[in-house]
Amino acid sequence: MNLSKRVLNMQESPVRKLVPYALKAKKNGKKVYHLNIGQPDIETPKEFMEAINNYDTRIIQYSYSQGEPSLIEAIKDYYHRDNIYFDNEDILITNGGSEALTFTTIATCNPGDEILIPEPFYTNYNGFTSEVNVNLVPITTKAEDGFRLPKRKEITKLITKKTKAILFSNPGNPTGVVLTKNEMDMLKEIAIENDLFIISDEVYRKMAFDGLKSYSMAELDGISDRLIVIDSVSKRFSACGARIGSIASKNKELTKNILKLCQARLCVATLEQIGAASLYKLPESYSEEIKNTYEKRRDIVYQTLSDIPNVVCKKPQGAFYVVAKLPVENAEDFCVWLLETYNYNGETIMLAPAEGFYGTKGLGKDEVRIAYVLNEEEMKRAMFILREALNVYNQ
Amino acid sequence: MNLSKRVLNMQESPVRKLVPYALKAKKNGKKVYHLNIGQPDIETPKEFMEAINNYDTRIIQYSYSQGEPSLIEAIKDYYHRDNIYFDNEDILITNGGSEALTFTTIATCNPGDEILIPEPFYTNYNGFTSEVNVNLVPITTKAEDGFRLPKRKEITKLITKKTKAILFSNPGNPTGVVLTKNEMDMLKEIAIENDLFIISDEVYRKMAFDGLKSYSMAELDGISDRLIVIDSVSKRFSACGARIGSIASKNKELTKNILKLCQARLCVATLEQIGAASLYKLPESYSEEIKNTYEKRRDIVYQTLSDIPNVVCKKPQGAFYVVAKLPVENAEDFCVWLLETYNYNGETIMLAPAEGFYGTKGLGKDEVRIAYVLNEEEMKRAMFILREALNVYNQ
Repeated sequence: MNLSKRVLNMQESPVRKLVPYALKAKKNGKKVYHLNIGQPDIETPKEFMEAINNYDTRIIQYSYSQGEPSLIEAIKDYYHRDNIYFDNEDILITNGGSEALTFTTIATCNPGDEILIPEPFYTNYNGFTSEVNVNLVPITTKAEDGFRLPKRKEITKLITKKTKAILFSNPGNPTGVVLTKNEMDMLKEIAIENDLFIISDEVYRKMAFDGLKSYSMAELDGISDRLIVIDSVSKRFSACGARIGSIASKNKELTKNILKLCQARLCVATLEQIGAASLYKLPESYSEEIKNTYEKRRDIVYQTLSDIPNVVCKKPQGAFYVVAKLPVENAEDFCVWLLETYNYNGETIMLAPAEGFYGTKGLGKDEVRIAYVLNEEEMKRAMFILREALNVYNQ
Repeated sequence: MNLSKRVLNMQESPVRKLVPYALKAKKNGKKVYHLNIGQPDIETPKEFMEAINNYDTRIIQYSYSQGEPSLIEAIKDYYHRDNIYFDNEDILITNGGSEALTFTTIATCNPGDEILIPEPFYTNYNGFTSEVNVNLVPITTKAEDGFRLPKRKEITKLITKKTKAILFSNPGNPTGVVLTKNEMDMLKEIAIENDLFIISDEVYRKMAFDGLKSYSMAELDGISDRLIVIDSVSKRFSACGARIGSIASKNKELTKNILKLCQARLCVATLEQIGAASLYKLPESYSEEIKNTYEKRRDIVYQTLSDIPNVVCKKPQGAFYVVAKLPVENAEDFCVWLLETYNYNGETIMLAPAEGFYGTKGLGKDEVRIAYVLNEEEMKRAMFILREALNVYNQ
């Protein structure tokens, strides 16, 4: 009566594995600034709860397996704003971007198949794939290069007969990289030449700074049959706990088959879909404001990091993360030390060790991911503590 | 760029595949009584929305991966009522019973492994297993025998080296069978002797009629290391759209590993968990009342079925389904005909063809599942229509 190899081989969440240390620190009276997890402090738009309260909740009924028609319509209209035209049947509602990625993996890969992915990558991609016996093949990118994609041949040499898709988040978690049009074109060409699906995780779309435009892959021509766009209300609308994501693809055979996966689990929580529909109807000015908020926080984080000696980190361009190489041997030890041992006037910070964001063993050992999800005052304080802590740690 | 075999091989939901016919019938002005899907007409207790409205919804935040502590506590206390003692860490909250079953399958089985299951079975078990490359091995039960379990050796002869678990729903969907203490003991002994996990789907627990007690497998001794109990608020509390389920097991290694699957998808919708906690706090009298309601409906359905010539069906004892063998050659054709062609004064019924509830090819072709989820008046009307329709169909 053994557990399966696939579950035993899964890694613990590097974002959440230090939680027991944080709980203990808090129990001992320390204040902990959470920069470890992408949980923004920004209020969820009030339209979310208003929509739920206006809904007939006498019987909390099953929704459709594909999703609530009003939410599908709202997402369709949302894409239209950027001249992206999906049909209603092209859109499937999922339990967060998480389920969207699991379903996409199951539908495109058999056990033993491979998906290419730039590393460092959103660590839960490991879970979505390894739990269904699919292997991630990392395309290494480096802090020194600002985590830009390598040259085309560095990518294509990784392709085997088992490669089924290329997956990336853009803007990137954890790197903050916003792909240029040229980089997107390169990925497009690689996918076409090697007959791969393109899984574009765009949950941080519209969160690109410095006047950059964050394109959707759906704005590119010639890949509508192979493109699968993942989205979510979690980050853009600060509604992480709603667990509303979506899959959008013009490949009808794909969506028809993913619908079978949707049917097996019946539906996504009904009320949350009603609430989410209201979010996708918010004007563009809402996203603009959110972006500006994060851009200011990014400036604070990047400024501090630039000022700390021997920290390697290029300016992140989007999302709300940065990966920084720290002047420590083992970043996980440092993160544990921050929670267990260190405090500055009773305060400390929690970071995510970046090793778990890499697929290649040994990489990222001296790196951390910082999520700038607190207000400017708190971010300043937290970054000050990081600087002081590094000073103490390295003495 | 082909889709995966595992997704292509998945069957369409037999409960939902006739939906296009139903939509067309309604468009043409027909009233359709839905006996095809387990969506009760009973109002969700008002405590559900009250709890949500009393919750701080300013930021819809991630919940814990394991689940909201208040919901875990409420489920623990709910089991205590029946002298079942789980620790908080033994309970994991999932996206409905659906995700609970998917996670349990992934954690207990590698690709190619097998799970034993009495057939006919809840058809979505097919999805939860085949999408992760696990095979269901059916233990055939028959309408003529009231779908009771066969003798022990009929079950044990199906066990191979690849058999990892035995799975069943009790009270049974779609059969309405409530396992006796003796049958449960037999399953327990089979599991112990063959070192199998026991996956006990108890989402219909407390819905047993005729004064029968529906035991939880957790009330049995000697299996705490191999028992996994699945539960959900969907049916017992008429909150299908909340998508709140749970896994409970005293096998700490199992729950620790399933927690990794929970972490990969971050969490279950926060608000729905808050609402669900209030449901598990409802007094036993609530379940008693719901049970009495379904028992009266069961009586109406069973009485009518008994009166129709050549229908084979024993009295169901629990849940809110019955599988009946009809005097037709192909039940799916009959179900389509009901929607496409037939009407009785502008009304018709929608049933679920039972073939999809069997794992053995060819079985169940002349059977349907009827969900008695409408009020007594409507159930009477719907069953009257079934009787009339069979008359017309067989002329």
